[in-house]
Amino acid sequence: MYDGVIQDLIDELGQLPGVGPKSAQRIAFHLLDADPADVRRLAQVLVEVKDKVHFCAVCGNVTVDVECRICSDPRRDATVLCVVEESKDVVAIERTREFRGRYHVLGGAISPIAGVGPDQLRIRELLGRLQDGTVTEVIIATDPNLEGEATATYLIRMLSTLGLRVSKLASGLPVGGDLEYADELTLGRAFEGRTAIAG
Amino acid sequence: MYDGVIQDLIDELGQLPGVGPKSAQRIAFHLLDADPADVRRLAQVLVEVKDKVHFCAVCGNVTVDVECRICSDPRRDATVLCVVEESKDVVAIERTREFRGRYHVLGGAISPIAGVGPDQLRIRELLGRLQDGTVTEVIIATDPNLEGEATATYLIRMLSTLGLRVSKLASGLPVGGDLEYADELTLGRAFEGRTAIAG
Repeated sequence: MYDGVIQDLIDELGQLPGVGPKSAQRIAFHLLDADPADVRRLAQVLVEVKDKVHFCAVCGNVTVDVECRICSDPRRDATVLCVVEESKDVVAIERTREFRGRYHVLGGAISPIAGVGPDQLRIRELLGRLQDGTVTEVIIATDPNLEGEATATYLIRMLSTLGLRVSKLASGLPVGGDLEYADELTLGRAFEGRTAIAG
Repeated sequence: MYDGVIQDLIDELGQLPGVGPKSAQRIAFHLLDADPADVRRLAQVLVEVKDKVHFCAVCGNVTVDVECRICSDPRRDATVLCVVEESKDVVAIERTREFRGRYHVLGGAISPIAGVGPDQLRIRELLGRLQDGTVTEVIIATDPNLEGEATATYLIRMLSTLGLRVSKLASGLPVGGDLEYADELTLGRAFEGRTAIAG
């Protein structure tokens, strides 16, 4: 519908996740009106991000250095390892300020439908990190969905032979939510994992 | 939260209209995983769009040439001019395939709050196009909101002295909608503009 490069831009933007044709058009016109320096900076950052960003050699988190900020921070507890699916999960957990250990990013979850098995994940690297005995505790923090649970089950079985403390994040009612609106599975999990208060 | 350029990318994406912090993060990670060639193409298109796109010298539509595709198409009826606010509106009207005339893009609407008066719009250029008598009919197709209506009123007053046929798009019930769910203003307009069927 639009002249050459304008339509190209709308098409390219429409490829991004969560950006439909209408949003793509809206963003394209915003960019057409925007300061050329701002648009050039966005283009620049896009190129840079692909040139500079790679995975941390130790934990698999995204980083611009050889090792990520957390792996290269000597103040982080090297005896506790939190295993997550993606780099996004590291950021989510960091925001809680509850965890002072280190991470291991699997790069996904086991999903037979998507053709992702244990070999496609950074599980070999995880076992490698557990060799020298520094790590004494592993916290499994995969997503609370089918793939995440399958991955957790696989990891728990594998780690149980190594004599480590292994735990998994609690499932239950989200804080600030209404019990009434919780789905049955979540409510069921909240019952299963109920916390003893007295008696 | 993220290393340098990754956070920069998330911040830049978060500046785009309709892209919140979560979507920005999602898009950033999509781009991190994407084929470098795809990301480079997006960056390339962003730069090109700013270099190549400008406004049509005749109608004010966005184009990569001196004149836009519609203005330079001899098959389009040069006697009818449809006045719209933005280039997006041209595309929306073209999609209906109802209109075979030409356009005039104002570049916005009169809005005292946003500090946009008639002088900030391409109204002088519109009057210029009406000088030689080729155009005999003007259809006003501004948005059916406060600013669009104010602009329409201003244009109608101005054009009424020129001896042209002037019309304005019909307001009424959207096709496929429920009468019950129409707001009072729309329903009121549908009554005002009711079409005589018989008698």
